[in-house]
Amino acid sequence: MDNNELLALKEQTEQKYAELCAKGLKLDMSRGKPNSDQLDLSIEMLTHCLDGECVSKNGTDCRNYGVLDGIDEAKELCMPMLGVSKDEIIIGGNSSLQMMYDTIARAMLLGVLGGDKPWSRNEKVKFLCPAPGYDRHFAICESMGIEMITVPYKSDGPDMDMIESLIAEDEEIKGIWCVPMYSNPEGITYSDEVVRRFANLSPKANDFRIFWDNAYCVHHLTDTPDKLLNLLDEAKKTGKQDMVFMFTSTSKISFPGGGLAVIGASAANIAYIKSQMAYQTIGYDKLNQLRHARFFKNFDGICEHMKKHRAIIEPKFKAVLDTLDREIAPLGFGTWHKPNGGYFISFNGLKGTAKRTVQLCKQAGVVLTGAGATFPYGIDPEDKNIRIAPTYPTVDELNAAMEVFVTAVKLAAIETLI
Amino acid sequence: MDNNELLALKEQTEQKYAELCAKGLKLDMSRGKPNSDQLDLSIEMLTHCLDGECVSKNGTDCRNYGVLDGIDEAKELCMPMLGVSKDEIIIGGNSSLQMMYDTIARAMLLGVLGGDKPWSRNEKVKFLCPAPGYDRHFAICESMGIEMITVPYKSDGPDMDMIESLIAEDEEIKGIWCVPMYSNPEGITYSDEVVRRFANLSPKANDFRIFWDNAYCVHHLTDTPDKLLNLLDEAKKTGKQDMVFMFTSTSKISFPGGGLAVIGASAANIAYIKSQMAYQTIGYDKLNQLRHARFFKNFDGICEHMKKHRAIIEPKFKAVLDTLDREIAPLGFGTWHKPNGGYFISFNGLKGTAKRTVQLCKQAGVVLTGAGATFPYGIDPEDKNIRIAPTYPTVDELNAAMEVFVTAVKLAAIETLI
Repeated sequence: MDNNELLALKEQTEQKYAELCAKGLKLDMSRGKPNSDQLDLSIEMLTHCLDGECVSKNGTDCRNYGVLDGIDEAKELCMPMLGVSKDEIIIGGNSSLQMMYDTIARAMLLGVLGGDKPWSRNEKVKFLCPAPGYDRHFAICESMGIEMITVPYKSDGPDMDMIESLIAEDEEIKGIWCVPMYSNPEGITYSDEVVRRFANLSPKANDFRIFWDNAYCVHHLTDTPDKLLNLLDEAKKTGKQDMVFMFTSTSKISFPGGGLAVIGASAANIAYIKSQMAYQTIGYDKLNQLRHARFFKNFDGICEHMKKHRAIIEPKFKAVLDTLDREIAPLGFGTWHKPNGGYFISFNGLKGTAKRTVQLCKQAGVVLTGAGATFPYGIDPEDKNIRIAPTYPTVDELNAAMEVFVTAVKLAAIETLI
Repeated sequence: MDNNELLALKEQTEQKYAELCAKGLKLDMSRGKPNSDQLDLSIEMLTHCLDGECVSKNGTDCRNYGVLDGIDEAKELCMPMLGVSKDEIIIGGNSSLQMMYDTIARAMLLGVLGGDKPWSRNEKVKFLCPAPGYDRHFAICESMGIEMITVPYKSDGPDMDMIESLIAEDEEIKGIWCVPMYSNPEGITYSDEVVRRFANLSPKANDFRIFWDNAYCVHHLTDTPDKLLNLLDEAKKTGKQDMVFMFTSTSKISFPGGGLAVIGASAANIAYIKSQMAYQTIGYDKLNQLRHARFFKNFDGICEHMKKHRAIIEPKFKAVLDTLDREIAPLGFGTWHKPNGGYFISFNGLKGTAKRTVQLCKQAGVVLTGAGATFPYGIDPEDKNIRIAPTYPTVDELNAAMEVFVTAVKLAAIETLI
């Protein structure tokens, strides 16, 4: 496009933008929140699912104290999500974020299995952060003063060469954040080779842990879903199974505000975690565990349930992708990837345009995740990544919001090109 | 009693003990657990209480993400329990133990409002522990390497002279554990003077906190319940309100396994805690908050509900006290106090008899809280305190268990006297 063409496009886009601003929209594509349609899918859990019957199949009255690691039927329900066995799992409260935070807090204050001392006794603690990634992962590190090192993504996972070489030399690196399936926000699933290289990491720190946040393990959007190799199984082959902490939750299966959080790890890790966790609580909410086990029955029940979620959100992903394909692809003002699952579409605009795009959207009444939020310390070195969360708005709202988004993308791009 | 009388009593008691052992009892007076009769009182919460209606009165869909500090109706329900206002409360998950643990973990890792640095950055952190006290409080300290200093109880609360003088000189003392009403296990309620002295403490550490675990604030067992002065109100009068962290829960009101935990503190403290807590979770289980608000309706509803609990457990306390009065009082082999509420009876035997008594009970099939558990590091300096938890067994079971208990007390006493 020559300068005159750009100027013409600018004028046209500015006019469009002014029209959109005049509409006084109030739309939100900022967070990965299910819509109420999706929450209605599990409403039975809030009506007659428990119906006053509160005894678990092994005779535990779920109303009373006890059972630190979760009732059997909840474990059995969630074990296939992470591919672990009964002594490799703990069912927690309603938040896997809290489980991850607590796991790091314990590591900082008390230490992990096999470590010489609590992480916080080191002068410095560092984490590797594949980015773009999940802002709340990075926020946990930031809150605890853990130094974050950004690792770029390749098409099949994070840059393993970089990870292997960094952790081999630096004992202060104690962990790495991963969303290995339908990653937040890239939508990438780690390849078998990447998983095997994770299972065979040789960190200098003997208390290094992989934080494997498998949040989207059953959140498929196609008939041919991605397949993720089981990291714990692979790590058992290398004898490095204690290096792995896996997490998931039913937050985007049942209810974000009242689901189940899950941690999976080697039996030795789980036993160690339970010995530490016993000081924190007598037990998580077993009634909610029973509710989930009764409602979903088993893992097949979860998989069937996820098809209903897919039916609701697939058109929303399509609306976003269609608009991008139609409006941005021909201009070359950005790139994106059609994810096979998960909750996000990751948009990479031209360098130096993300902040401006988000600002323009905000002025026109469309809230996006802050530019930079997908990077450690909120700093996107190229200022180009924007995370789009299509699930919460309706399709109509989404179409309206995307009209604003692509107009903002164009304006921001033109401003950098002229 | 002369030696011959003791020997006669010994023979008689040994025979009785042998008979009891032969019964093969399996009874548990170890933990403050409600019986299933008590849990049935709230069963409506697990049947039709929510009935699929999940929107809070201000329009929040409680199924979805959000609302870090709890929904309004849950706050309103719990505010009178601690005597705080809406900006002085956070409703948490199902465990006040977890809230207290998390509060200390945050203090250790991140620091408290007004502190110069996280507690863990000090060479040593110490807590004052009025004892006999709650074993799980002490266990939190022990797990984090916090040094515990035992403070003895007087009839109206802990020894305030000792507390005032210790904290005035030692900057390493960062906190004190209190169960100010129907204390665990003593059953003492702190007098107005004690509360006022707490409100006017002048610690050397500017990041000192009073951990005021008001677990039994509505758990009365008489028509003329004890009255506890509001520590936060008193501390506002001295301008020291930021020194106070108050806790309670509905664990022994609704369900131990699925209740609500509550923290109350000055508005400034609560704002600070929320800013830290935002890294740990997006929000606790709002559906369970809504369930509680709908079921109890308001604080009066809680108070009425507690009368039903009292009707169930008062006869159990009576069974324990009657047996002690009948069998131990005439011999002078121990002292105890009739509590006006709470969950425990604290038995003080002759010096050096508690461990032996618990052991004898165990051999006869009656499980008690371990002797020493009510003291820091599990060490009762006089080996005389035993916590009796009468709520879980039925009255018949309790009578059987108490028969074993008093026999064990007598044997242990005679052994030290002969």
